[in-house]
Amino acid sequence: MKAVRLHRYQERPVVQEISDPRATGPLDVVVRVGGAGLCRTDLHIVQGQWADKSNVALPYTLGHENAGWIHEVGAAVDHLRPGDAVILHPLATCGFCRACRAGDDVHCEASAFPGIDTDGGMADFIKTSARSVVRLAPGIQPADVAALADAGLTAYHAVKKAVPMLYPGSTCVVIGAGGLGHLGIQCLRAMSATRIIVLDPNEEALALTRGWGADETVKVNAGHVDRVLEMTDGKGAEVVLDFVGEKGAERDAWAMTRRAGSDFVIGYGGTVDIPTIDVISTERNVVGNLVGSYNDLVELMALNASGRVTMLTRTYPLAAVDDAVNDLEAGRLRGRGILIPDGA
Amino acid sequence: MKAVRLHRYQERPVVQEISDPRATGPLDVVVRVGGAGLCRTDLHIVQGQWADKSNVALPYTLGHENAGWIHEVGAAVDHLRPGDAVILHPLATCGFCRACRAGDDVHCEASAFPGIDTDGGMADFIKTSARSVVRLAPGIQPADVAALADAGLTAYHAVKKAVPMLYPGSTCVVIGAGGLGHLGIQCLRAMSATRIIVLDPNEEALALTRGWGADETVKVNAGHVDRVLEMTDGKGAEVVLDFVGEKGAERDAWAMTRRAGSDFVIGYGGTVDIPTIDVISTERNVVGNLVGSYNDLVELMALNASGRVTMLTRTYPLAAVDDAVNDLEAGRLRGRGILIPDGA
Amino acid sequence: MKAVRLHRYQERPVVQEISDPRATGPLDVVVRVGGAGLCRTDLHIVQGQWADKSNVALPYTLGHENAGWIHEVGAAVDHLRPGDAVILHPLATCGFCRACRAGDDVHCEASAFPGIDTDGGMADFIKTSARSVVRLAPGIQPADVAALADAGLTAYHAVKKAVPMLYPGSTCVVIGAGGLGHLGIQCLRAMSATRIIVLDPNEEALALTRGWGADETVKVNAGHVDRVLEMTDGKGAEVVLDFVGEKGAERDAWAMTRRAGSDFVIGYGGTVDIPTIDVISTERNVVGNLVGSYNDLVELMALNASGRVTMLTRTYPLAAVDDAVNDLEAGRLRGRGILIPDGA
Amino acid sequence: MKAVRLHRYQERPVVQEISDPRATGPLDVVVRVGGAGLCRTDLHIVQGQWADKSNVALPYTLGHENAGWIHEVGAAVDHLRPGDAVILHPLATCGFCRACRAGDDVHCEASAFPGIDTDGGMADFIKTSARSVVRLAPGIQPADVAALADAGLTAYHAVKKAVPMLYPGSTCVVIGAGGLGHLGIQCLRAMSATRIIVLDPNEEALALTRGWGADETVKVNAGHVDRVLEMTDGKGAEVVLDFVGEKGAERDAWAMTRRAGSDFVIGYGGTVDIPTIDVISTERNVVGNLVGSYNDLVELMALNASGRVTMLTRTYPLAAVDDAVNDLEAGRLRGRGILIPDGA
Repeated sequence: MKAVRLHRYQERPVVQEISDPRATGPLDVVVRVGGAGLCRTDLHIVQGQWADKSNVALPYTLGHENAGWIHEVGAAVDHLRPGDAVILHPLATCGFCRACRAGDDVHCEASAFPGIDTDGGMADFIKTSARSVVRLAPGIQPADVAALADAGLTAYHAVKKAVPMLYPGSTCVVIGAGGLGHLGIQCLRAMSATRIIVLDPNEEALALTRGWGADETVKVNAGHVDRVLEMTDGKGAEVVLDFVGEKGAERDAWAMTRRAGSDFVIGYGGTVDIPTIDVISTERNVVGNLVGSYNDLVELMALNASGRVTMLTRTYPLAAVDDAVNDLEAGRLRGRGILIPDGA
Repeated sequence: MKAVRLHRYQERPVVQEISDPRATGPLDVVVRVGGAGLCRTDLHIVQGQWADKSNVALPYTLGHENAGWIHEVGAAVDHLRPGDAVILHPLATCGFCRACRAGDDVHCEASAFPGIDTDGGMADFIKTSARSVVRLAPGIQPADVAALADAGLTAYHAVKKAVPMLYPGSTCVVIGAGGLGHLGIQCLRAMSATRIIVLDPNEEALALTRGWGADETVKVNAGHVDRVLEMTDGKGAEVVLDFVGEKGAERDAWAMTRRAGSDFVIGYGGTVDIPTIDVISTERNVVGNLVGSYNDLVELMALNASGRVTMLTRTYPLAAVDDAVNDLEAGRLRGRGILIPDGA
Repeated sequence: MKAVRLHRYQERPVVQEISDPRATGPLDVVVRVGGAGLCRTDLHIVQGQWADKSNVALPYTLGHENAGWIHEVGAAVDHLRPGDAVILHPLATCGFCRACRAGDDVHCEASAFPGIDTDGGMADFIKTSARSVVRLAPGIQPADVAALADAGLTAYHAVKKAVPMLYPGSTCVVIGAGGLGHLGIQCLRAMSATRIIVLDPNEEALALTRGWGADETVKVNAGHVDRVLEMTDGKGAEVVLDFVGEKGAERDAWAMTRRAGSDFVIGYGGTVDIPTIDVISTERNVVGNLVGSYNDLVELMALNASGRVTMLTRTYPLAAVDDAVNDLEAGRLRGRGILIPDGA
Repeated sequence: MKAVRLHRYQERPVVQEISDPRATGPLDVVVRVGGAGLCRTDLHIVQGQWADKSNVALPYTLGHENAGWIHEVGAAVDHLRPGDAVILHPLATCGFCRACRAGDDVHCEASAFPGIDTDGGMADFIKTSARSVVRLAPGIQPADVAALADAGLTAYHAVKKAVPMLYPGSTCVVIGAGGLGHLGIQCLRAMSATRIIVLDPNEEALALTRGWGADETVKVNAGHVDRVLEMTDGKGAEVVLDFVGEKGAERDAWAMTRRAGSDFVIGYGGTVDIPTIDVISTERNVVGNLVGSYNDLVELMALNASGRVTMLTRTYPLAAVDDAVNDLEAGRLRGRGILIPDGA
């Protein structure tokens, strides 16, 4: 089959022929790929930023946001049938540890992460576990939803954790109206009646957020934190969803979080740096957020199937991965780039 | 009446005669003091560290951990009677804001803090609000419980928030076996079956914690963090209760918190300083903790009345406040110093 | 002032002149009434069904769904000003008991219920407590929202308790598309992405529910329970909100509740009658629901101010209370009847 | 191997030789039985009361409370080793449905129940799923804990659900100090500081409960409900754990539940019969309880390993199952009867 292979860090991955994966283990599942999302993390991988964390052996196949159709299943799998349209949870988890048993499978003690530490989905086929497969509702096309598998799931998970704090009359500040942020806003609108204030430096992006459910927008510039405080009677928001997490956003997020409120860290790159006296005297929290569980993905797909959460995408043939990377690097890519194998 | 008055920062407070407070407002309550706790915060106040925060006008009366007997009540108070033995919630709250209405009165939008920003309880009498008064169970002496009003309440509140995460088989690390820590350990033991590991540099303090319910102890020295990781299969604890919050404890606390776990900041002085990638890649939380609510204090007093949580105290006559301060500063004070007015 | 007074059970109340209430207590508030809702409970009161429960001394003034403007406040009230537009929480609560302190003021141990056990709001003025007053957002007219004080609050409270169980992909069955049901549906839509199936015998009512957010409707007839089971793969709904509670609805509600789901009893009149083996073998719950808290009412008013929850009303002059009662009894009243004092 | 086989309803099961089970499926696990609990449900099965529910094909092997040692594992199982001491969760679950993925495996959509609908553990060996196996802590003997697998797990699960409502100062009423009740009391004591009031008709049983953590006991006779109301200021308990569920206990349970409290149905046989007006006017709940989840069992075993929850047992050789049944039927069995295969 064709696959996008990374041979050396700092060099562009190449499309080449490799052998098809097979469902050798009893819970293995091989999926014919319908679409694989291209993510900024893929650029970081190529640059070598993940080399020490993933310890993946090169060459390997990129692609951690995948959807397609069941192609072959292992001997112990009888709830899936070839041809079923599916989206893949990004992790292949063990199913036996406490976290897996508690519905918190992201913290599985023995998981693999296809596209990061094993072969991913920028290929004709991908092998994963039967535990990672979510069936799509009738009529949903894999290529249209592939990127929900990671970007969407991360945004949904954070929003789901935040919603219990977001009673009607509360305020939620969303920092970043980009890939994750635009999904987070849609999730917030679908699941709460909170007042949504979105911050972004890009006015065009801000304008779009109204259609996704934002109530108010604030352009990021010198005065944006004061502006938000002013909009909240000097108190800040019950929840700040920081989809940026660097370049000052991580400081702004805390500054815009009100007493007894929570600053949700979702994006990363910067550093949380807060005197403990500020933490305790206002009883604020810093909340970590990481992807989402299998059931979170099922729920997100229900939001998608009902039209409440959709994703802006642009498709490329798998063979044109270079063009997609170029567009992403050059900032020419509106929405998520999705690679489509031949014949999918 | 006699009262411990602070006239100038950096100078010792003095005991002098001032006029008795009166219940002039309809919800006012005047309490005859049975005991007032001396807290390290009182030393900080004298040093002037709180001057900018409290903006209190000097001179004023110290004492923010108070218990005694109802002496006089305002016109709108009919559920309290002179002579009732009571402990005082440290805040006098408005009762009308959302926080007060939600049982989260510590975040009241218009509260006073006797002993910090108005006259406190190191005196024969103290004026507070009817909303701040918790009746004691029969047989409980005010002087024995006064310090539960602040130190105990803070420990209880943090533990209560932590307990839902502390299932049987989990681990809770307690940093600091001192004033708050020893109460926190007792609260943990009363309300959970979690494994309690206590850290402290003082071996004598550690030895005492076994009697309060600690399962294991680790002396704070070069290797204590590694020791705790080793005791938890390299994973750390579901919850770390950091009663110190400075001098490295705030870093250790985070390092000993496991994936998806929570680092409870209770003590203060240091700085939380964590790369956002560490926050998100492990989905850990930093949880702020302030003193507890009115109902928290009622619950803590139930723990005390049933013998589950008790406090080590040493009493001084109110007039001997200087001796108490000397003992506290010199580290000669085992347990909490309690000032007792004449005739109480 | 003019007031609708009930002199004898089984006789129509009469509009007559009585003396104005005064804010004599320190927390008293007198409100100039802008609108008072007429509720089926008022008919039951007149029939004498509440005589034993309320023990109210006749004659007294009806009206337990009230909104208007602050007219006079007691000595201890400084957060409200004459002229403020307000809606009244139906209970006047003590503020001191555990329930009041926990934000669960409906279970106050010493509350009054104007319109039920003391003089209500079908009058030019009503006296209540400062604790019962919710300020309206600018532009909101008291007469438009008065009935949210009880009917709306009950529906909101039940929905708020149900929402944590109603993840995307779940189903919520609403029994009854009438006064409470139509508000419940709007609240559900505003705060969740659950699939809403509404049951009612009236097709016209069902047709309207689509505009409020219902996804599907089922006419109540011989086969409605089977129809709902079929729509839910034979499993039933995660939550059933039973706004009827009698005439078979209470049996249907349980039958349509899936394993591990919850049957919310909101309407009343019938009897819950379930073998304990059915309770345990499916681990289903029966959940009681009663009005809502003060903060619930604040939140509902935020939903109303943002246009998410509105109420269909028909106004009558206070003097025409008889016409309103006639219309309600005859089933001619679409939406809630609101009595408007002269000059309001 | 030897096994206790039921051939015909209404006839005693017999011990006979059958072939050993084999781990043929990839997730199969064969366990050498160390002990199998004899439960009143086994008597009901013999009487035929479960025939229609389980649809099990006769003959089959009884025993649904099992512990032992791993004997053989399927091809896909690499986290268990022959010789590991284990206790078995009573269900063998699918691992793929939403309930399994949410840590709520008892509501699995495709589970088997060895001892009820497939061959159980009153035998030398039992076959179950790798998903059902909980490893025992070092030093714990299978025969000592076998009955925790069902009776203990049910009690633990109910208590765990109740604990969040049982703040210090609250009251929990436990109806029934027998097999489940005595475990429930120990779990309550380990995980809460609530006041525990135990009801039972048997004074000897009541006396024992003090050692398990009960604070007060009430003999069930004509006046027990009034006595409990009196002990709770006329209000009743925040939670009632009804381990009986029949013969009037189900009515008493509701009557002793306070406003906004919850009546936990655990035992069964009777009928919940409550006017909806009583449900709503007091906002009480009826809470269903089934056996616990896999993680619940892990947690219970942690309570057991730390000595907080232990079980009174009496052992019989497997071949003496008839004696055990005789003793159970005759009421001569104090604690749980445990059948021990030869050589275990």
